Amino acid sequence: MSHPMFERHRATLERAVQAIRERSYWSAYPESASPKVYGEGAAEAGRAAFDALLGKRFPLTQPATVGEVGGEMSPYGMALGITYPRPDIDGLFAAVGRAEDQWKKAGPEVWAGVCVEILARINKASFEIANAVMHTTGQAFLMAFQAGGPHAQDRGLEAVAYAWEELSRVPARALWEKPQGKNEPIRMEKNFRIVPRGIGLVIGCCTFPTWNGYPGLFASLATGNAVVVKPHPAAILPLAITVKIAREVLAEAGLDPNVVTLYAHEAGGQIAQDLALRPEVRIIDFTGSTANGRWLEEHARQAQVYTEKAGVNQVIIDGVADFGAVARNIAFSLSLYTGQMCTAPQNIYVPRRGIDTAQGPMTFDQVAEGIADAVRKLLADPARAVEILGAVQNDAVLRRLDAARSLGMVVLDTQPVAHPAYPGATIRTPLIVRLATGDRATYLNEWFGPIAFVIATESTAESLEIARDAVRGHGALTLSVYATDEDVIQRAIDVAEDAGVALSINLTGAVFVNQSAAFSDYHGTGANPAANAALTDSAYVANRFRVVQHRRHV
Amino acid sequence: MSHPMFERHRATLERAVQAIRERSYWSAYPESASPKVYGEGAAEAGRAAFDALLGKRFPLTQPATVGEVGGEMSPYGMALGITYPRPDIDGLFAAVGRAEDQWKKAGPEVWAGVCVEILARINKASFEIANAVMHTTGQAFLMAFQAGGPHAQDRGLEAVAYAWEELSRVPARALWEKPQGKNEPIRMEKNFRIVPRGIGLVIGCCTFPTWNGYPGLFASLATGNAVVVKPHPAAILPLAITVKIAREVLAEAGLDPNVVTLYAHEAGGQIAQDLALRPEVRIIDFTGSTANGRWLEEHARQAQVYTEKAGVNQVIIDGVADFGAVARNIAFSLSLYTGQMCTAPQNIYVPRRGIDTAQGPMTFDQVAEGIADAVRKLLADPARAVEILGAVQNDAVLRRLDAARSLGMVVLDTQPVAHPAYPGATIRTPLIVRLATGDRATYLNEWFGPIAFVIATESTAESLEIARDAVRGHGALTLSVYATDEDVIQRAIDVAEDAGVALSINLTGAVFVNQSAAFSDYHGTGANPAANAALTDSAYVANRFRVVQHRRHV
Repeated sequence: MSHPMFERHRATLERAVQAIRERSYWSAYPESASPKVYGEGAAEAGRAAFDALLGKRFPLTQPATVGEVGGEMSPYGMALGITYPRPDIDGLFAAVGRAEDQWKKAGPEVWAGVCVEILARINKASFEIANAVMHTTGQAFLMAFQAGGPHAQDRGLEAVAYAWEELSRVPARALWEKPQGKNEPIRMEKNFRIVPRGIGLVIGCCTFPTWNGYPGLFASLATGNAVVVKPHPAAILPLAITVKIAREVLAEAGLDPNVVTLYAHEAGGQIAQDLALRPEVRIIDFTGSTANGRWLEEHARQAQVYTEKAGVNQVIIDGVADFGAVARNIAFSLSLYTGQMCTAPQNIYVPRRGIDTAQGPMTFDQVAEGIADAVRKLLADPARAVEILGAVQNDAVLRRLDAARSLGMVVLDTQPVAHPAYPGATIRTPLIVRLATGDRATYLNEWFGPIAFVIATESTAESLEIARDAVRGHGALTLSVYATDEDVIQRAIDVAEDAGVALSINLTGAVFVNQSAAFSDYHGTGANPAANAALTDSAYVANRFRVVQHRRHV
Repeated sequence: MSHPMFERHRATLERAVQAIRERSYWSAYPESASPKVYGEGAAEAGRAAFDALLGKRFPLTQPATVGEVGGEMSPYGMALGITYPRPDIDGLFAAVGRAEDQWKKAGPEVWAGVCVEILARINKASFEIANAVMHTTGQAFLMAFQAGGPHAQDRGLEAVAYAWEELSRVPARALWEKPQGKNEPIRMEKNFRIVPRGIGLVIGCCTFPTWNGYPGLFASLATGNAVVVKPHPAAILPLAITVKIAREVLAEAGLDPNVVTLYAHEAGGQIAQDLALRPEVRIIDFTGSTANGRWLEEHARQAQVYTEKAGVNQVIIDGVADFGAVARNIAFSLSLYTGQMCTAPQNIYVPRRGIDTAQGPMTFDQVAEGIADAVRKLLADPARAVEILGAVQNDAVLRRLDAARSLGMVVLDTQPVAHPAYPGATIRTPLIVRLATGDRATYLNEWFGPIAFVIATESTAESLEIARDAVRGHGALTLSVYATDEDVIQRAIDVAEDAGVALSINLTGAVFVNQSAAFSDYHGTGANPAANAALTDSAYVANRFRVVQHRRHV
């Protein structure tokens, strides 16, 4: 008899498995925030639930709690005033270890059923989580809802589907009958058990705590590992709500809720390192800086370490049909969430001699100006601009913006924007700076935030060469090419495959290079320094468990 | 139109995929050396082919050859006198890099078709390879034929099947249609390309050059990587024949033969390290000592490193039905190939108070003596003994045997055996020494060779505790339990799953704990220090390639 949570979600899981095999469009959790989809009053109830959390102790009861931590500031101007349990590290791991013993024996159906039930409950809390994401990351509300809610949930379910498919391929039992000529065959019964690797540690980031956190969380859970979630100190709330829901579902399923725990902490200190080096931690999923990611890869040798780090995303313009559509698409990609996306483009390469368009040739300056102009138009209305830009997550972005203004000729200067509803929000428009191809030391580093460089190259061949070197040497999550010549497109594909980066070709409509869709686009490739794994493929899940067999004669 | 080699082997590949899903008995390459199977005269022709190689330059033409190396000594007493091309490392990698560019574009069907064709040709050369394995490893002829021939080939095919299944799960193309309410959907075409990781390096061992070498070789090849094969200096020939065949098949397929190259070298020096640290090497498959394996894991950070290292294999005796059958089974496991198997048992735990059998109770001493006696009987006839024992591969085994004699009370002393056909062979029977549970510093290390320890424990509970600690702390490939009480068996299963080691229960017939069958038994678990991967599962292949996508509107 199957576990009821598994039965409840079997159809969803099977549909998700079909989706990862096809990688065509599918989504389990609607991205529309409409009351027709989520119900009348859902948005208001979610907002009220969020408001009710402010200024209080977060309702999460965990073992080994020795105090409280907190201190999140909304990028929209207010302190959240929420505190979370501060765990004693040894006590917490002791409790997690006991939970793990039970969880690892529960088996694939329970792991999958509990995971999809957690995701279904998280989906119901999408509006509450949207507010939490907005007021920790600075994302505008609709983006916080979509990227922090249903899209993140889809990424979580995608990981569960890969795990489920991988586990399903291991038979539980086999009868081995080896023929012996005229004699009776040798008969053995073999049993194959899935043995999870150990405790998973998810290290969250401050810009996409749920979208980047769910794949690792659910990949580890769905393969039978307990998970300790360590949010970024600036974005605890979205993952705290997630952990609380996970613990409620576990308890309802009759399981020890300490399978999923929160390790909240304040900024500074060595907590991430201390957690990462615990011998019980056998899997780490990390999103963050290159320095911290490399440290984990180098030092946390007892664990499988999956990292997403910094990269240099690039746009190559060779020729376009409709320049207006190209400029609008790029302008949106630069502006969305103030460029605070690991997938946002940074370097735009344009041949020095200009480009051809269906409306005739354009000079390099016209191309650069045209993109700047498209940004100006996109963000002309402050009320609309703030819904695209969101708010600046942290002061490092502001300092980087300031420093970037003196790197070269400013094509488009950054501007503050006043938020009609949140006067305390720090909001900035993108900066575009012209650099020379010789400024490699500058543009081959990641300038995280709304900072773009337009670079005049000798030719598209040079643009492609620089792009290849940048991906290989510094990593990238995205590459974008605009060309009307199919030969150029083919060369761009060759460079992308050679350097190992996902390529978008001639995006002019409602799809942006920053966006990757669960169940279809692989986020990251694992083939360049920006990430050592892709979200999600079988390599991302296959090493989170082992198979241990026993055999005997029958 | 499919590649002809793929079409030729499609049915075999599909059958192999079925086998890895079921993991019940299957074999592609017959283990019977009978002329009825391999043809009249096949054995003689293989022997003649081997003899024709002796004392000559091996017929392998490779680029960047700057001299010759050689120096293999048969454990049966004669020098092989064969020399191999000595490559210039930079020149070789340049040639391999060019071959890799072509190979990686050939695609999954060509990779699979070429791999299975190579295996089919290797299978035809099984007798030649058997002689090569015998006269490098010291295995007796029939074992060299089976383990070095068909069983190794099956392990290679198993890796191809896992690779093929994994690659088949990635669609080449998807149409992504995202609904837009009443508007036209957004339509994109997405292409997903398999991008191999880079160059694979296979580091062979001197006891099972083909059986341990083929999984990594074929896993890397079948996922589109070029492979440099570096044999152990004492066992070059079996892999040289393998590489020669692979290069012939590649050339016939119209491909650059440098997809597979041999890097032969003499003992001593830093060649393995130099190869392992080449930036082009992105995958390493290693079988050998713990020290060398750890060095690779620690230093070859540019590569995915798969290691099989030392371990401590254990037998727990709690109670038996037929002691004679148990003793005979253990005696054979200790004797087979002079214990020079990574899967051979070393520590035998027996309760101090003795055990129960269907024939009544036995004291500890009776159990120890009974096993010693079974070894004596098994090896009483020298002509039969040498076909089980084979020959000692290297002097380190002799030194270890000598050192082990003074570790405790000798229950069964090691003896030299004269080989009727090879007077120069060094042949030794197993040594059994009684140790106390307190001698952990001794028996928790691997004593590779025909060395077994019988250890009197307080109880089977203590035996299980020691076994768990040994697997966790020192690694193991096998664990064996003899018990009539189903509760004890269940506790042994729990320990095996907890510590992550394959368990054999009550082996008394024609299956031995040392043996693991391709397509059914996982060799190693990846869950304890003896090996960081299993042969073979999807984790073993999924990280040898990445997926790189490009997308555009349609």
